[in-house]
Amino acid sequence: MDSEQLRENAHKMVDFIADYYKSIENFPVLSQVEPGYLRELLPDSAPNQPETLQNVLDDVQAKILPGVTHWQSPSYFAYYPSNSSVAGFLGEMLSAGINMVGFSWITSPAATELEMIVLDWLGKLLKLPEGFLSTGQGGGVIQGTASESVLVVLLAARDRVLTKLGKNALEKLVVYASDQTHSALQKACKIGGIHPENCKLLKTDSSTNYALSPGLLSKAISDDISTGLIPFFLCATVLQLSGYILISVGTTSSTAVDPLLALGKIAKNNGIWFHVDAAYAGSACICPEYRCYIDGVEEADSFNMNAHKWLLTNFDCSALWVKDRNALIQALSTNPEFLKNKASQANMVVDYKDWQIPLGRRFRSLKLWMVMRLYGLENLQCYIRNHINLAKYFEGLVAADSRFEVVTPRIFSLVCFRLLPPSNNEDHGNNLNRDLLDAVNSSGKIFISHTVLSGKYILRFAVGAPLTEERHVIAAWKVLQDESTSLLGSL
Amino acid sequence: MDSEQLRENAHKMVDFIADYYKSIENFPVLSQVEPGYLRELLPDSAPNQPETLQNVLDDVQAKILPGVTHWQSPSYFAYYPSNSSVAGFLGEMLSAGINMVGFSWITSPAATELEMIVLDWLGKLLKLPEGFLSTGQGGGVIQGTASESVLVVLLAARDRVLTKLGKNALEKLVVYASDQTHSALQKACKIGGIHPENCKLLKTDSSTNYALSPGLLSKAISDDISTGLIPFFLCATVLQLSGYILISVGTTSSTAVDPLLALGKIAKNNGIWFHVDAAYAGSACICPEYRCYIDGVEEADSFNMNAHKWLLTNFDCSALWVKDRNALIQALSTNPEFLKNKASQANMVVDYKDWQIPLGRRFRSLKLWMVMRLYGLENLQCYIRNHINLAKYFEGLVAADSRFEVVTPRIFSLVCFRLLPPSNNEDHGNNLNRDLLDAVNSSGKIFISHTVLSGKYILRFAVGAPLTEERHVIAAWKVLQDESTSLLGSL
Repeated sequence: MDSEQLRENAHKMVDFIADYYKSIENFPVLSQVEPGYLRELLPDSAPNQPETLQNVLDDVQAKILPGVTHWQSPSYFAYYPSNSSVAGFLGEMLSAGINMVGFSWITSPAATELEMIVLDWLGKLLKLPEGFLSTGQGGGVIQGTASESVLVVLLAARDRVLTKLGKNALEKLVVYASDQTHSALQKACKIGGIHPENCKLLKTDSSTNYALSPGLLSKAISDDISTGLIPFFLCATVLQLSGYILISVGTTSSTAVDPLLALGKIAKNNGIWFHVDAAYAGSACICPEYRCYIDGVEEADSFNMNAHKWLLTNFDCSALWVKDRNALIQALSTNPEFLKNKASQANMVVDYKDWQIPLGRRFRSLKLWMVMRLYGLENLQCYIRNHINLAKYFEGLVAADSRFEVVTPRIFSLVCFRLLPPSNNEDHGNNLNRDLLDAVNSSGKIFISHTVLSGKYILRFAVGAPLTEERHVIAAWKVLQDESTSLLGSL
Repeated sequence: MDSEQLRENAHKMVDFIADYYKSIENFPVLSQVEPGYLRELLPDSAPNQPETLQNVLDDVQAKILPGVTHWQSPSYFAYYPSNSSVAGFLGEMLSAGINMVGFSWITSPAATELEMIVLDWLGKLLKLPEGFLSTGQGGGVIQGTASESVLVVLLAARDRVLTKLGKNALEKLVVYASDQTHSALQKACKIGGIHPENCKLLKTDSSTNYALSPGLLSKAISDDISTGLIPFFLCATVLQLSGYILISVGTTSSTAVDPLLALGKIAKNNGIWFHVDAAYAGSACICPEYRCYIDGVEEADSFNMNAHKWLLTNFDCSALWVKDRNALIQALSTNPEFLKNKASQANMVVDYKDWQIPLGRRFRSLKLWMVMRLYGLENLQCYIRNHINLAKYFEGLVAADSRFEVVTPRIFSLVCFRLLPPSNNEDHGNNLNRDLLDAVNSSGKIFISHTVLSGKYILRFAVGAPLTEERHVIAAWKVLQDESTSLLGSL
């Protein structure tokens, strides 16, 4: 690591990456390669002698980029957004440059303290209750992903109960969520040894806009208690883009419906840990007009949002807040001799190793700090509002074409829609939409994804890439219309 | 994310980071700040309006860097190395630039395929048995840390047994390791619901150089079986720097002692999953003369080494190989509708989401690929040998000063030593070495760490920072000698 070699080569890499962004619209959004393509292009083993950076960059251009699905393309509308920004990128660079491993406070006090501070900043932008800030018994921590966030709080909740009731209670522990929750919850339950049949995904339907019903939850809890089971964890997913739906829909102008509060009260009355997962929607809550979607979060024990989705912070940066940091520490701390040090022993500091699964951790708070400072709250709010307006615009385009249907009310920047089958045959409709998805994605012009809801195959159009402008939405709609015309014409 | 803004600002960041490396010797290695220092220097909340990059960089210089413990300093000899290199840094930049989330093959085929290829490359450099390569039923995957590596294989092993015996067998499952194993194993057991008393850390002592004795293991297994318990997992730690010692010591010139093979056979005979953790030592095994330290790995079910420790790959990059990838997938897969796609459904591809805890994942193979290509095997071998020679040199310096003792034979680039107490009083000796550690670390000139072995407080001197040269080792020894003289003089 010679500083002048670093300087020379890293400048080259900057230009390579800037050129990539300059030409990003020229690539097919969804990679069109076949499985196994790369093995045919690369040698079987590492070289004995060094190669030049130019060799490697040439290979990146010729062999790697064709196999990349361009999440940063302005025509990427699939899954959920995964934002990259100048500030986020600079933060990643600085973190990789310093390259320290901040498991304990002493291994880089700035890493721990900046993380506490920026999560307080972000918590305040989201108007989280004070109990989530690091000035009290709680605090925030950056996890890699929402999967890890839900896992660590599930383990904290599990061990809180097992400490009281003894380890053999494990087989009786019950988790609740809606059947629309993200698959990460089931994975967390599996990892933590919760019996699969005790991970109860309560049924939802269109009558409540796929929100979890407090009545249903109450009944499930009392039924379970009566059979000797032990309810201990509730996960509410606020506008999760992935599985699809959500609690707390309503219209954007209505704040009347607020299941979080009702769910939270049920949880509290039953001594259940209440986790609110707003991995995607959380970002929108920095705008006052959308904050209502997490009203009731004051009842939660933990809250998660992914700044790496829709808040211009490069992957990974999943922000998790808890009200009782000791519960995390009880479940996840280790204290081997070689990590002991005065500051930790004196309990004067936070050691984030005890808030997460891994020991080592990167200096991820730098990028979040730089995003907040280099853009400022007002620009971040504009950024969110712009995407929501673009999605609203797209929703209007879909609604104006009678061949299509907007399946559920648009949620923030996600539009769920489908091409209506000419006959009333649902199987036909599903095949038609599957074919439409394949057709638009293999055009390389746009990338969208799908889900299935109440048996219907539905297309998801998620606006959220930083480079997306109105012209890309218009162009995307044209691709969808043209492919539909062609599909319907061939029937 | 405007490409020209990116270009302009990222060039500035490159110069900032290159200047940091140029001046890295001017910083105290161990940060000397007090707990809470940063909160006094930063505002309470995020700004409404954007700030300039220069503002932020000024703050990094004035407020963040004083709170950094400089793992890249040439005088960093603590814990374990955490390498940064030009190639590793460029790989991180490129990965942050592309910023895709490669959970499934389709979300960026290049990310999955390059990872399979480079782990085959690295597996071949380590001469791992073919069963670990991706061309058969096994394969490699990049995890964040060794903690996650051991966790995922523990879960795979657990669920393999529970699938056969039923979920209620969980409370009977037993894990074995030596009492010198890394604390990550106990954490993994806790996460996976293994009863703490069934995580059996078998006693070691100096008679076997703190290696796990096959005889002791056999006896523990048969005792446990006879009481109805179910042995299912064995973790052997090869030269782990952290907890401290190790299996398979011998001298570097002897390959006679090879417990891995013996341990592996015991595991196989008892249907136990055998995991070999070579997080630190693995890097040295790219040199033919050190490969013997993992002889017997052919008996293992899984093998882990951290390229981010001592192989010039920026954090995080923990390489894990398994022989049966299906065991991982059985334990960790989820298959929600919104992630379904033709390539995955047809079983034509690897989806790494099913080999790890999180869903999302970064394009980490780029940096490992760049390290192997930009340095080449021969330079990497030289790099390892140079550190080992520096450690050997340091060991000689310690041995030549009768006030000190080399406590255990040097292992690769780690020297464990202590200042001998003038009296034969062990308590006094421990306090003396604790004081010596504090004195050298608070000088800011070097940073070393400690452990406790058989009741003795021992100093660890780990050579492994890329910038370390002989002059830094000499200077470090002078600091240690001077502080010792001063401590002994004040007695």
